[in-house]
Amino acid sequence: MGITRTFGTPSFLEGSRLIEQWMREMGLQTRVDAIGNVRGRWVSPCESAKTFVIASHMDTVVNAGRFDGPLGVIMGLDLLEQLIQLGQPLPFHIELIAFSDEEGVRFHTTYLGSKVVAGLFDDALLNQKDASGTWLSEVIQTMGGDSRRLKSDAIAPQDWLGYFEIHIEQGPVLYEKAIPVAVVTAIAGQKRIEITFEGMAGHAGTVPMAMRQDALCAAAEFILSAEQLAAGQTNLVATVGKLVVANAASNVIPGDVVCSLDMRSSDAAVLAWAYQSLQDTCFDIGRMRSVTVGWKLIQETAPVACDAQLTNRLATAIAESGYDVIQLVSGAGHDGVPISQVAPIAMLFVRCFEGISHNPLEQVELADLAAALKVADQFIKNLIVD
Amino acid sequence: MGITRTFGTPSFLEGSRLIEQWMREMGLQTRVDAIGNVRGRWVSPCESAKTFVIASHMDTVVNAGRFDGPLGVIMGLDLLEQLIQLGQPLPFHIELIAFSDEEGVRFHTTYLGSKVVAGLFDDALLNQKDASGTWLSEVIQTMGGDSRRLKSDAIAPQDWLGYFEIHIEQGPVLYEKAIPVAVVTAIAGQKRIEITFEGMAGHAGTVPMAMRQDALCAAAEFILSAEQLAAGQTNLVATVGKLVVANAASNVIPGDVVCSLDMRSSDAAVLAWAYQSLQDTCFDIGRMRSVTVGWKLIQETAPVACDAQLTNRLATAIAESGYDVIQLVSGAGHDGVPISQVAPIAMLFVRCFEGISHNPLEQVELADLAAALKVADQFIKNLIVD
Repeated sequence: MGITRTFGTPSFLEGSRLIEQWMREMGLQTRVDAIGNVRGRWVSPCESAKTFVIASHMDTVVNAGRFDGPLGVIMGLDLLEQLIQLGQPLPFHIELIAFSDEEGVRFHTTYLGSKVVAGLFDDALLNQKDASGTWLSEVIQTMGGDSRRLKSDAIAPQDWLGYFEIHIEQGPVLYEKAIPVAVVTAIAGQKRIEITFEGMAGHAGTVPMAMRQDALCAAAEFILSAEQLAAGQTNLVATVGKLVVANAASNVIPGDVVCSLDMRSSDAAVLAWAYQSLQDTCFDIGRMRSVTVGWKLIQETAPVACDAQLTNRLATAIAESGYDVIQLVSGAGHDGVPISQVAPIAMLFVRCFEGISHNPLEQVELADLAAALKVADQFIKNLIVD
Repeated sequence: MGITRTFGTPSFLEGSRLIEQWMREMGLQTRVDAIGNVRGRWVSPCESAKTFVIASHMDTVVNAGRFDGPLGVIMGLDLLEQLIQLGQPLPFHIELIAFSDEEGVRFHTTYLGSKVVAGLFDDALLNQKDASGTWLSEVIQTMGGDSRRLKSDAIAPQDWLGYFEIHIEQGPVLYEKAIPVAVVTAIAGQKRIEITFEGMAGHAGTVPMAMRQDALCAAAEFILSAEQLAAGQTNLVATVGKLVVANAASNVIPGDVVCSLDMRSSDAAVLAWAYQSLQDTCFDIGRMRSVTVGWKLIQETAPVACDAQLTNRLATAIAESGYDVIQLVSGAGHDGVPISQVAPIAMLFVRCFEGISHNPLEQVELADLAAALKVADQFIKNLIVD
């Protein structure tokens, strides 16, 4: 059975209470902030200590697995438990945060929780409505939060020491390489395009091949061009995920096709180059085939680099723990995106079964959890010592 | 506004009465047969005279134009009117038939009218139901027909002299060549295939290009292969008209794609070769991409050649009328398909605007109607003289 735990729902509130209880039992100073993030602090005795945040999200997509998000929260609890058992005062505060909304399912806007912590929450979002017509501001109120307090829930830029998240890879690279963990070097930027091909519908039996303006053949040529371009780059993926033939029938030459294009890269220059190349290719295909092409940029996000120094430290911890150091770019978005604007971020990926994610079949081996915990523990201890 | 005149409906019966009235006013012996064909005979005084049939259909698709079908019936009325005005007895009977159902919209089975006239009607069809659950046998009864009389409405094989139909091209060749008419050499055979591509769905951001099993990329490669194969043959068309991506999302690598393939040729050997070639190509693409291919033949009809001698006579009539002789294969099906099993058939195509058909925009120039009439008149007169 899949899990659905979207922002502010009963199952979400049940999970939130459980996480806060675990934090409290461990001895952390806990609170639920205005956006519903569950936050537990272990306070340093040092004057002017900064805050190191360990976090992931507790919300899920619809019909999700158990690991995407909660894994990082529970690993954080384990890490802190080990540190607390050592009984030594820390040179910095550690705050463990379970973000309330990363997936953005309910209000179609991602990173609600981490935007508040980064101080980047835009109050205009409060007027977003969910599918039932409920405002975000109403959900906050129902959860016991106060929309006016959102600003004060941010950690001020000067107070951050860094940010660390453990998350499943959601891709097949570690699974294929048979390696338990990887260090994330960047979170890919993304461009999402809607493309229309408008040719001429016609009778599949009576229009000779040379007289056709087949919109689906044009789309097919474009799909293969996008695949080929991305396959020739190490730092680029391109996907046509949606394709619809209007008024389709097996005996009608397609006259209208709409498809999506999703392109991602950690390198803004590569992404810009690929965008321009594929746009040019698309219009060339249209000209060659007398098919009218429409090209519309729907959405774009810039690539985010993880902090070089913090990421080096994480790589060192992986090596010290006895594992090969694999560097991966995250093709999926993460809470590190908004946080990176105010703090150095580092991320550790954990292998998941066949790369499957956003699916009840999502699975992580116990041995890989142990490996991630070993690496993270080493990483934090190194931070404390330095 | 489009026309919808499907078998046995009120608009159909209104059209049927009008056609019978026109036939009667002209002096033909008229009747409506059991399947609803309107038939008008001009009887020869000669003993053992055979019957030459001039025909087309009076039913239409949904939201049709004015010419597909009725054109041939009305041209037949004009032809007979001219012959009758000459006042000479004919050496053969002429029967003008307005077939009741060629499109097969209501009962999803084509050529109901011409199958009866050819003596090829299968009584099992009487148990077909339309969308409202009405049996074909009930519709026949409502129209005043008697299902038991269907067999006796056939023209016996030994009584046929030949069959002649005038029909719009439904394709763009004559329009592009700026020529009013063409002689039809054959009605293409057809194979309709349903193809499934089953790869592996995945996250568009996290699965590297080299690890993908993208079902839509496989389908795209197949679509272009089919287009290329057909483009390299003069006597073949291939069309992927339907394509559906299951569970499509712009950020998900397509895991399941279903598409159609429609292939037509007047040459059975070419059709069989193309079928085998594309099937092989499709499975090759699947193997190369680790995508599982399913291939299912849904429907097939054999090519039908028009009668060589009668078609030569029609070509002669075109030349005698002062037009270039263009030979075309009909990619669409026609009533000549069943009739060809019992009689020599010939068909004349008339140019239509941009090849548009099955559409209210269907249009034929008055000058082209005059050209077709001139050719047909010459054709029939030559038959009478010989």
